[in-house]
Amino acid sequence: MNLSRGGEQIKRINLGFLGAGVVGAGTLDLLQRRGDQIAGAIGAEFAVRRVLVRDPSRPRAVAIDPSLLTTDASAVLDDPSLDLIVELIGGENPAAEYIARALQSGKHVVTANKEVIAKHGVELLDLANRRNVNLFFEASVGGGIPVIGVLRHDLIANEITSLRAVINGTTNFILTEMEQGRDYDAALQQAQRLGYAEADPSNDVDGVDAAYKLAILSTLAFRTNVRPDQIQHFGIRALRQKDFQYAAGMGYVIKLLAAADVGPRGVEASVRPTLIPTSHHLASVKGVFNAVLIDGDQIDQFMLYGRGAGARPTASAVVADLCAVAHNLQRNVIDRVEIVHHRRPVVDFGDTQSRYYLRLQVADRPGVLAQIAHVLGENQISIASVMQHETDDTVGVAEIVIMTHLAVERRMTAALTEIKTLDVVRENSAFIRVER
Amino acid sequence: MNLSRGGEQIKRINLGFLGAGVVGAGTLDLLQRRGDQIAGAIGAEFAVRRVLVRDPSRPRAVAIDPSLLTTDASAVLDDPSLDLIVELIGGENPAAEYIARALQSGKHVVTANKEVIAKHGVELLDLANRRNVNLFFEASVGGGIPVIGVLRHDLIANEITSLRAVINGTTNFILTEMEQGRDYDAALQQAQRLGYAEADPSNDVDGVDAAYKLAILSTLAFRTNVRPDQIQHFGIRALRQKDFQYAAGMGYVIKLLAAADVGPRGVEASVRPTLIPTSHHLASVKGVFNAVLIDGDQIDQFMLYGRGAGARPTASAVVADLCAVAHNLQRNVIDRVEIVHHRRPVVDFGDTQSRYYLRLQVADRPGVLAQIAHVLGENQISIASVMQHETDDTVGVAEIVIMTHLAVERRMTAALTEIKTLDVVRENSAFIRVER
Repeated sequence: MNLSRGGEQIKRINLGFLGAGVVGAGTLDLLQRRGDQIAGAIGAEFAVRRVLVRDPSRPRAVAIDPSLLTTDASAVLDDPSLDLIVELIGGENPAAEYIARALQSGKHVVTANKEVIAKHGVELLDLANRRNVNLFFEASVGGGIPVIGVLRHDLIANEITSLRAVINGTTNFILTEMEQGRDYDAALQQAQRLGYAEADPSNDVDGVDAAYKLAILSTLAFRTNVRPDQIQHFGIRALRQKDFQYAAGMGYVIKLLAAADVGPRGVEASVRPTLIPTSHHLASVKGVFNAVLIDGDQIDQFMLYGRGAGARPTASAVVADLCAVAHNLQRNVIDRVEIVHHRRPVVDFGDTQSRYYLRLQVADRPGVLAQIAHVLGENQISIASVMQHETDDTVGVAEIVIMTHLAVERRMTAALTEIKTLDVVRENSAFIRVER
Repeated sequence: MNLSRGGEQIKRINLGFLGAGVVGAGTLDLLQRRGDQIAGAIGAEFAVRRVLVRDPSRPRAVAIDPSLLTTDASAVLDDPSLDLIVELIGGENPAAEYIARALQSGKHVVTANKEVIAKHGVELLDLANRRNVNLFFEASVGGGIPVIGVLRHDLIANEITSLRAVINGTTNFILTEMEQGRDYDAALQQAQRLGYAEADPSNDVDGVDAAYKLAILSTLAFRTNVRPDQIQHFGIRALRQKDFQYAAGMGYVIKLLAAADVGPRGVEASVRPTLIPTSHHLASVKGVFNAVLIDGDQIDQFMLYGRGAGARPTASAVVADLCAVAHNLQRNVIDRVEIVHHRRPVVDFGDTQSRYYLRLQVADRPGVLAQIAHVLGENQISIASVMQHETDDTVGVAEIVIMTHLAVERRMTAALTEIKTLDVVRENSAFIRVER
């Protein structure tokens, strides 16, 4: 429906919301507060016509006309008067099916759903292209940081060779707390108290959430389909307070680094705790902040930094997407930027190389270091430095911290397996990559 | 003209270039190397049809078909077969007139011209809107850093309250060298040797270039017209090596900071050397890199960092703009985002407040500090700390470094004028704002 305002046509775009949780309520609130201003700026206005919720009686952070609420997804997805579906339920199912149904029926879709886009993004974008509708997902990675748009549009003339990102606020908060002296459990509890971590924090602390986001970023950056199950991910549960102390002593901080590179053999992608030099740009990303460092052949090094989560930053990204759809809708255009251009293999992570930090608890007696060094040497792993730290004398345990030169992951894990069988080695070891 | 490729329509967009200097040659080179890939990605291809140059015989960094070269601007501007003019001459005149002529005749325009956009951007965008054509200028600020697009589109739902930017690579290179111990002249010569500074560096070192860029950023961020002549700018010529030493001793670095805020009284905007805490995000922006820190009410704090100049980063931005125009051109849409929404006054800089760093060379005798403190007190300026440094005993000169609490600029300059008349004060003083 078109209204006229000041002689200019204002297009009205009818929205159906799926979900009115933290991000949904934040987006509805932002549209209520700033709808007029946005309409003035873009020449289109958004009218919320339906809101799918689980429990209509639940109190919410935003006032919603009760007549818009429904618990029936079909009442939203099958409503022919809706132009655009805003999917903010999260999780793979039923969100993936809802998005596909919406696109199939010719509705545009804006989503913040990283899991769906990471697992099904390429197929859903293909469906959107075929149905001649827009599917936008800026809010799926990095909250208010517009990294999706930058990769899809602004860096289009670049061959992107490398991504380095601190892309999970929950773990970065925990690691920042540990850097300041807390232990893991206390830091996690603090994150939960502040609402940064969920009661079951597995998705965040095991690196699953970051792997979804890295799959999306890698797919866009390298123009090839990188699936989350191809991304090796380790979480942060095994890190100990003393790893931060040892790292600091050598000039490093520890971050959960999402890293992807494209080289002659294909794409290397992983999410894992990593020692990063304190002078590195990502070392100063603290607390719940996120950052994405991008290397492109034209722009060289480029970084985006900001709040990667939260109702307001995420709503900012959702509304920017709504405006981008509105821009296209005004003349029935879609963003048909080709996503997958190359067929690049994803390299088996065992074949990749890194320097490593290795912390081992060992019996405090002569010859122990020689045994460990022997196993490393047999696996062609060269030692850059060794420090032996005293622990508790009374129990006869010492701690050895080894930094290696560049080594192949497969050989490193083989050596580690072998080292753990040595009778002088105790449990509780750490094995962390080191970023240049 | 439309070609067909793989069943899909590929639109051909005919380009006329104005200028084939560093950025022009870089853009032509990028289009030659990556044209096919870009055409595949966006469904449109760019054909360079005319290139305005000053001297067709001059050797260039890129091979251009000699039959495309012309020294006659009208041969480009009046060619009805051209869809889009790429203006890369730089400078206000005749570029501003060329852009206006191109828009007037219904041609789209992409430009990297900060001076033209800073001085005439609002009128030219208005003209583009009226003629229903696109005017894009991503490369005018921050080289490969897509700050224009981010402000125009991605942050559209935000009220932006503050901008802080290191936005001139030449001066940041010089300041970084001075931070490492060089004096101003040596650092400038080094910048000139490396091609970072021009033979006449005034535009950069006096803050003029940064003021143009800040005018563009402020206009977009605050949605009000901020003209470059409303932006107070000081350059870096008065800085001395010892200012960097004193600053470092107190935990600061010195940057040429482009700063703009919007408050109840209007917009405050300035470009001036500023003491910045070493922990500040902009403190770690070194050499020719640029960064823009944006505070918005939805996204909170957000930063873009990258190469702010150079042929390749700038060409990356120009080509991204070409692709954006192509996207719109495919269905005859324009980016009609309203630029000026508010009529906000620009605050007289004398009325703004800051903390200040003051370095004075004084006679090394009793009572000097009392005289200076008295003048400051009479002007209602409160001293936070004072350090007196010995200089050369033999000449009886000492150096006093004063940090003030928040003070009004007008009172500070009045006090400084008065202090300079004291017979115990020698020339060669510095007066620098201090960022929180």
